[in-house]
Amino acid sequence: MALDVGLREYIHDNQESFAREIVKLVAHPSVSAKRQGQEECAEAVKRMVEQAGGQAELLRLDGAPPLVYGEVKSTKSDRTILFYNHYDVQPEEPLELWKSPPFKAEIRDGRMYGRGVSDDKGHLVARLKVIESYVRVNGEPPCNVKFCFEGEEEVGSPHLEQYVEKYQDHFKSDALLWEYGSIDPQGRPIVSLGVKGMIYAEFTIRSLTQDAHSSLAAALPNPVWRLVRMLNLIKDENDRILIPGWYDKVKELADDELKVLEEAPSEAEALLSTYDARGFAGEMSALEAKKALVTGPTANIAGIWAGYTGPGSKTVLPSVVHCKMDFRLVPNQEPQELLRMLRGYLTGKGFADVQIEPMTVEPAAAEASSIPKATARMRVKHILVRKLKLSS
Amino acid sequence: MALDVGLREYIHDNQESFAREIVKLVAHPSVSAKRQGQEECAEAVKRMVEQAGGQAELLRLDGAPPLVYGEVKSTKSDRTILFYNHYDVQPEEPLELWKSPPFKAEIRDGRMYGRGVSDDKGHLVARLKVIESYVRVNGEPPCNVKFCFEGEEEVGSPHLEQYVEKYQDHFKSDALLWEYGSIDPQGRPIVSLGVKGMIYAEFTIRSLTQDAHSSLAAALPNPVWRLVRMLNLIKDENDRILIPGWYDKVKELADDELKVLEEAPSEAEALLSTYDARGFAGEMSALEAKKALVTGPTANIAGIWAGYTGPGSKTVLPSVVHCKMDFRLVPNQEPQELLRMLRGYLTGKGFADVQIEPMTVEPAAAEASSIPKATARMRVKHILVRKLKLSS
Repeated sequence: MALDVGLREYIHDNQESFAREIVKLVAHPSVSAKRQGQEECAEAVKRMVEQAGGQAELLRLDGAPPLVYGEVKSTKSDRTILFYNHYDVQPEEPLELWKSPPFKAEIRDGRMYGRGVSDDKGHLVARLKVIESYVRVNGEPPCNVKFCFEGEEEVGSPHLEQYVEKYQDHFKSDALLWEYGSIDPQGRPIVSLGVKGMIYAEFTIRSLTQDAHSSLAAALPNPVWRLVRMLNLIKDENDRILIPGWYDKVKELADDELKVLEEAPSEAEALLSTYDARGFAGEMSALEAKKALVTGPTANIAGIWAGYTGPGSKTVLPSVVHCKMDFRLVPNQEPQELLRMLRGYLTGKGFADVQIEPMTVEPAAAEASSIPKATARMRVKHILVRKLKLSS
Repeated sequence: MALDVGLREYIHDNQESFAREIVKLVAHPSVSAKRQGQEECAEAVKRMVEQAGGQAELLRLDGAPPLVYGEVKSTKSDRTILFYNHYDVQPEEPLELWKSPPFKAEIRDGRMYGRGVSDDKGHLVARLKVIESYVRVNGEPPCNVKFCFEGEEEVGSPHLEQYVEKYQDHFKSDALLWEYGSIDPQGRPIVSLGVKGMIYAEFTIRSLTQDAHSSLAAALPNPVWRLVRMLNLIKDENDRILIPGWYDKVKELADDELKVLEEAPSEAEALLSTYDARGFAGEMSALEAKKALVTGPTANIAGIWAGYTGPGSKTVLPSVVHCKMDFRLVPNQEPQELLRMLRGYLTGKGFADVQIEPMTVEPAAAEASSIPKATARMRVKHILVRKLKLSS
């Protein structure tokens, strides 16, 4: 499906109307973490598939938002390509950092700003529009095209496996194109050879049944101090995770992998200037940071909150503290095993009372050698790919 | 001004209408930390003074909310008593912990719930109503009565000193009754022999210009980890503040003071059950906790926030973290000196970049031997008292 001249022209002439379709889709506040606006957004995506000349239906599963399935048939080939994208987005907070409303996409200086413009509504629309354009210019596409648009990617795709199980026939295909693609600041296309896994969990420590006046801090325990001590046990100043065994199964890079890594352009330096950071985490060198981005397990604090967070002062002793963490995992690290290690470690250090609520528990996806590496992402997506292979 | 039988009866018969006056005052969201609703609340308090048979005016100072001054004159004595109360309140957050709206006071099981019911609108109304009742039953009060109702107590009374300076004559009096009084769970009245001082400050660490995707945590620094390390340097597991010199000037209790303390009933055990705490901070004993409540400096985390704090998960690397702390100070600790110690200590430990914004900086108030100890609170209030002594 090379982009011939007529097709290029068509796309060029219709660019503005395509952009408006992204704006329309962004207007749906389909935040999966809040189970919000998913039904309406799925309906809008379904109409967009039909607009592209395809047939669409909303697949259903109890307790899950609809999965939009679509297809554009071809008599030119019996081969099928499947596109995966998602119509849900990350929460829009913190609101004060938006210059324009998150769900009202706005174009400033040639860039579009809005929640999901990049991840993943922009890609979703781009793929539909390239098929639509092809059909308008050339008629039937050169092979069958299928679409799988799910609504829970941003919360770890908890129902994707069941969807694929239930609707096996729908997803039969010969190739799968994953959610996104990007270029680096120099315009070079990036091909991902795998994706890290993740444990995302919320930690809660409650010391009192209700908030107290802070004068009582002389006698009553403060859960924030306790969390500070707990967090301090998880990672050291050099950014090394202190949980015993955490790195045991980490596979060292093979010589050829290391060679590819060293020869590849680095985005590390560019990161420092983009975010105006004084240096890399744990005082790493640029080369170490480059390697860590590809091969390093992480322990990140994604959110923390307790007590009074408004303007001015309030003398309060908070009763409870919450913290969200994501641990990125590399090949061979088994997330359930690590989660047990984490619990065991904290219990051993006297933090048995800390409530740990895992939200995403997914292994890395680079080791599945039978699967085209560039398309693999997480285990659930592996399953999608594996089932496609088995059934096609 | 003993409570004679007629007065008791009058108060008893009017109890419900007095309670409604508290409800009316609570309806004003006069949160000084947010500079909100102060003007309207001051007007309402002024009307209440007039209703009590007194004369009232709103004193003004640039950049400050009005101070409500009131007086009820007497020809029976040339002596004057001054009541100090405040009409501002603490912020109402966190909203989800309120069973009824904070600014719509509600009576449940014989108790009134609403922001400021206890601190300090309930006391303010009670004092006005006792004077009003006296006047209605007995005519003129036995001495001149003055009222000083300020609107910034909850943010450290930043303008009270200037107010007293500007309106010296208004505040001339022979005795001062401070904002509150309370009874313990056994019904015993509590007499305070001093009040701790305070440093309240907000700490901010910014590592990035904007939030990043948490996959970049492999290379980019996270300010929350940095704050965790900083906080861990401030206090140890035994609840001991680690800043060198912090305790140097703390005056040991004299034998007679210690004796009073040991003989006094303890509220420490009751605190554990009220808040359902597993034990005291730093594994203190009940006696240690009792002493700490009266004589212990504290380092409390009143608020902390960064990154995503909503439901579900968001994979974000926060660019900035904030933390509010209050340090309670005991006699002889000099707050400005301690603030310098704190800054110096953090700088020495490599945290020179941490932004520290002091909001309240007040010494303790028990050492001023020339002032009736039971009425002293903070330095600004000392000044009020001192000026009264000088000018009366």
